[in-house]
Amino acid sequence: MSEVTVTLPDGSTLSVAEGSTVEDVAYEIGPGLGSDTIAGVVDGELVDKHAPLTEDVEIEIVTESADEYLDVLRHSAAHVFAQALQREFPDAKLTIGPWTDDGFYYDVTGVDIDEDDLEDIQAEAERIIEADYDIERELVDREEAFERYEDNPYKQDVLETEAAGEDPVSFYQQDDFYDLCQGPHVDSTGEIGGFELLEISAAYWRGEEENDTLTRVYGTAFPTEEGLQEFLEQRRKAEERDHRKIGQEMDLFSIDETTGPGLPLYHPNGKTILNELSDYVAGLNRDADYREVETPHVFRTELWKKSGHYENYRDDMFLLDVNDEEYGLKPMNCPGHATIFDQGQWSYRDLPVRYFEDGKVYRKEQRGELSGLSRVWAFTIDDGHLFVRPDQIESEVEAIMDIILDILDTFNLTYTVQFATRPEKSVGSDEIWERAEAQLESVLEDADMDYVVEEGDGAFYGPKIDFAFEDALGRHWDGPTVQLDFNMPERFDLTYTGEDNEEHRPVMIHRALYGSYERFFMVLTEHYNGKFPTWLAPEQVRILPISDDNIPYAKEVKHRLGDYRVTIEDRSWTVKKKIRQAHEDRVPYMLILGDDEEEAKTLSVRDRKERETKDVEIDAFREHLESEVGEQRPDPDFLD
Amino acid sequence: MSEVTVTLPDGSTLSVAEGSTVEDVAYEIGPGLGSDTIAGVVDGELVDKHAPLTEDVEIEIVTESADEYLDVLRHSAAHVFAQALQREFPDAKLTIGPWTDDGFYYDVTGVDIDEDDLEDIQAEAERIIEADYDIERELVDREEAFERYEDNPYKQDVLETEAAGEDPVSFYQQDDFYDLCQGPHVDSTGEIGGFELLEISAAYWRGEEENDTLTRVYGTAFPTEEGLQEFLEQRRKAEERDHRKIGQEMDLFSIDETTGPGLPLYHPNGKTILNELSDYVAGLNRDADYREVETPHVFRTELWKKSGHYENYRDDMFLLDVNDEEYGLKPMNCPGHATIFDQGQWSYRDLPVRYFEDGKVYRKEQRGELSGLSRVWAFTIDDGHLFVRPDQIESEVEAIMDIILDILDTFNLTYTVQFATRPEKSVGSDEIWERAEAQLESVLEDADMDYVVEEGDGAFYGPKIDFAFEDALGRHWDGPTVQLDFNMPERFDLTYTGEDNEEHRPVMIHRALYGSYERFFMVLTEHYNGKFPTWLAPEQVRILPISDDNIPYAKEVKHRLGDYRVTIEDRSWTVKKKIRQAHEDRVPYMLILGDDEEEAKTLSVRDRKERETKDVEIDAFREHLESEVGEQRPDPDFLD
Repeated sequence: MSEVTVTLPDGSTLSVAEGSTVEDVAYEIGPGLGSDTIAGVVDGELVDKHAPLTEDVEIEIVTESADEYLDVLRHSAAHVFAQALQREFPDAKLTIGPWTDDGFYYDVTGVDIDEDDLEDIQAEAERIIEADYDIERELVDREEAFERYEDNPYKQDVLETEAAGEDPVSFYQQDDFYDLCQGPHVDSTGEIGGFELLEISAAYWRGEEENDTLTRVYGTAFPTEEGLQEFLEQRRKAEERDHRKIGQEMDLFSIDETTGPGLPLYHPNGKTILNELSDYVAGLNRDADYREVETPHVFRTELWKKSGHYENYRDDMFLLDVNDEEYGLKPMNCPGHATIFDQGQWSYRDLPVRYFEDGKVYRKEQRGELSGLSRVWAFTIDDGHLFVRPDQIESEVEAIMDIILDILDTFNLTYTVQFATRPEKSVGSDEIWERAEAQLESVLEDADMDYVVEEGDGAFYGPKIDFAFEDALGRHWDGPTVQLDFNMPERFDLTYTGEDNEEHRPVMIHRALYGSYERFFMVLTEHYNGKFPTWLAPEQVRILPISDDNIPYAKEVKHRLGDYRVTIEDRSWTVKKKIRQAHEDRVPYMLILGDDEEEAKTLSVRDRKERETKDVEIDAFREHLESEVGEQRPDPDFLD
Repeated sequence: MSEVTVTLPDGSTLSVAEGSTVEDVAYEIGPGLGSDTIAGVVDGELVDKHAPLTEDVEIEIVTESADEYLDVLRHSAAHVFAQALQREFPDAKLTIGPWTDDGFYYDVTGVDIDEDDLEDIQAEAERIIEADYDIERELVDREEAFERYEDNPYKQDVLETEAAGEDPVSFYQQDDFYDLCQGPHVDSTGEIGGFELLEISAAYWRGEEENDTLTRVYGTAFPTEEGLQEFLEQRRKAEERDHRKIGQEMDLFSIDETTGPGLPLYHPNGKTILNELSDYVAGLNRDADYREVETPHVFRTELWKKSGHYENYRDDMFLLDVNDEEYGLKPMNCPGHATIFDQGQWSYRDLPVRYFEDGKVYRKEQRGELSGLSRVWAFTIDDGHLFVRPDQIESEVEAIMDIILDILDTFNLTYTVQFATRPEKSVGSDEIWERAEAQLESVLEDADMDYVVEEGDGAFYGPKIDFAFEDALGRHWDGPTVQLDFNMPERFDLTYTGEDNEEHRPVMIHRALYGSYERFFMVLTEHYNGKFPTWLAPEQVRILPISDDNIPYAKEVKHRLGDYRVTIEDRSWTVKKKIRQAHEDRVPYMLILGDDEEEAKTLSVRDRKERETKDVEIDAFREHLESEVGEQRPDPDFLD
């Protein structure tokens, strides 16, 4: 019997008989590990502990202490849900039920269930967990597997695709419930310490809109009840801060069915914030000698063929026909910028050439996956493209990094950094890759930045540095990115004349600071819980005259405050009600003006942290606003 | 025999026998007028003097002194061209050859001619004019007409469409040349005093891209050689100032075949100008309490059905299919703004609500008609929409008018104004139309403005006021517009709560200041001949160090000038060459810095009018820039 070599995470190797399972390998390492084994990660893929090894592999043993344990547990929780569902609704047909980052879901059909039914199913699931049934793998003849699912075309489809050719087929069984499944699973239902069904939505079979509509039930599970409660608390907080909810409360934006899904309309308050964000980066860009350009939203597909997007990206593009010629809404801004560069004559002395544009791009997501501002069809990238000489990569990336750090600081966002290097398939010479990677690495080192190297994870056209934001709730979101590109300059045949009077190829740097305005807007809304810093707040100051008699003085104060976004609450309400409303509206500063203030020509200032002070000079307050807003400070701090 | 009543321009009427011609009417008025008659305008349409009158009409007699005389003359010039062409190229087939605002064209086929051939044809045409052939109307049997054109499907098509049912058919004959034609024409070829063939381009039969491609020859004609020479001089000046030429010279924008026709890319210099234009109106808008919004470029056609654009405008829209639903690029911004208004709850106290957006719109023009920035597929309107109570129309239109006058003043543009009133087909009650028209008229009167009333020329949805710019060459371009709209609020069921606590319908005001940025950009480029005012100039100041040794001082000066758009010419050129280049680049100010200036810490200032002065303090120049740019003054005036 031949042997295979397994490589363990520490780099050591082990020879085992071909056909040995992950569990066998664990027992080989030590009996304690063997009995603790829940699953394995083989060549990066989470598999059942019974999975046989048929070739040389890298292996990791998953026990309760491994990160992957949660995935395995949630996979079993999906089975618990499915068993509970079938007990309550015997006609329910199962389709597929994978784990996710936050828990699991199961797509089912043949039942008409709503949120109320989830309570009954939850109770039944808790009984199944309580009963602590063993979860056991069962190998079933292929023929019998088809018989088991003679009424279920979805499972038949799985047998014919994912499980094509398998005989026997892997099932998992607990009590009288079984499910076609590759595993892995925990040993018994009782290992699930906390289980919660979360919500119901609709889904398409295989995610394709032309297929049957299914019912998707989301749930989550944890090893302990405390883990679950912590998650639910976090989720409740996130729901309270949901940007769709705050967006409506603060009248920031809307998306509706008549105008189209995934196509946000920004109301005046939202547009004010967008403008401030845009002006802020435009200023940073201008200081760094970028020049703004404007390119169309629609281009002939000739351009997308030239750039390669048509070949690789067509299915995600919005295409249209104009007099029998094909056009496409732009999925990216780079080919437009390369076109502008291409129209100039450049010498080595002119480089770097730096363009920026708040460029709207269009990417077709499935309707069902659109969600608020986080998944949209049309979003604006604060896109920059630099055309540089190879020897300028380091200084240019360094300058970009400085801007990124400025921005992260301004918004008080912590972050993580990934440096992705050359993948197996790539364009460009060894020399340029090595030189470029060394330059990027040197920038990261000089910036004294914590970063993770993702070997081989770069784009085929060049290495990149990606930032992820961490918001106030500890969630991560795609953030700034810096990518080198050796490919597009080739495709567009971009050149500059070198000192040697020869034509040379520039390197292109793609760079976004916020990434997408839509996503950044969403992150900020939730990060600040709608309490935007004064410089971003759509309404910066609200004047609350105590009685209608004080309205003329209110107008005088507004006038003296100049161009700030100041409104006067002139409805005939009590001051108490006016204050409550201003707090609800998250206005950074309230100025309460009664007869005393009017006589003394002063202000009573209240901020949204409910701090208050009297006898403030109008000029003093205006000067404070100038510095707080001018410096983009993160919170109202006049009363600090 | 029955009689018809003709009404003359002075309002007087005349009864003539049914079937009398225009010429008969003229003789009826007086024998002098009769013999001077060239053509007539019957119910607004220019017709041959032989046209018979079959019903009661309004009539105007066209003699040599009438504006329409030029059209008639150019119509005859088209025949002269056609005759000359057939003499030179007997195989040429004629299709149609109308007069235009600037001259005439004739679409022909069956010949392969280029600009060189025009000279021969021109010479032949001059011989035809010299010969002074009589131009005579000839009535030809329909059957014979078809025989005359048995080899010409285009003329057959005209016989079957425009001349359907006519028998006999009207031809015009001069010498041995004849042409199927309704007239009118001048009496003889010798009346043409100046005749010039201008250019050749391609055209489609009937203007439809799916039809045959034809050769279009443009020409013009005048009663006198002087008139022609004046026109040609004007045309030469316009060509020199052509925004496409200047756009390339100053690197403002480009349009190319790969990225798509009618879809301009703005280069950094052009984008700088656009941004200044946009910031300028945004400031005016904010001062007038408008709030900015942002709406998508793509909407579901549901929206266009709701707004009525789908029904009336579909053929001009860019439509696309997304997962079997139809979407359209927006041809107008108003439905998006109405959607935002619709999402609010409004009381009479909240109105007027004023939105503005630099909104890109998309309108499908034929590829062949696209031209630089003047005819494009995608253009940006500085669009404003106001939702007002009926009693607020006057004050709001007055405020809009103030902004428009500000703008016209800033750009030093003269203008004409048209007030268009209720057309026959219209929506909205008599009461609201009368009240609205009275309010608009009152604004025009109060503004002491010269305006022309175009009775019945308003939109079906409301009356409007249109401005046309007159540029430095005396050409007119569509400018600002203010339109009332009683229809869209109905279609979107927009309401506000009145003081009476009942729901009321607001009136919508559509308003654009520049109109389209693209067109305005073009007008300004040609109006200023690329010599943009300093506040708009992409490069405001160029520093010319006399030698490389002066570069550090140049950098110091640049730094002291702050945020203005200042560059340093650091190429190793002679000062003379540097100055010449700066003049070519139309830079408003040059600062020439040599050792003398460096020692004294002063500047030598030269402007693009070639004026120069020495010993200028840096601060004095910066302060001047602040006021010249801040006040948007029309020309560099530091050296005035």
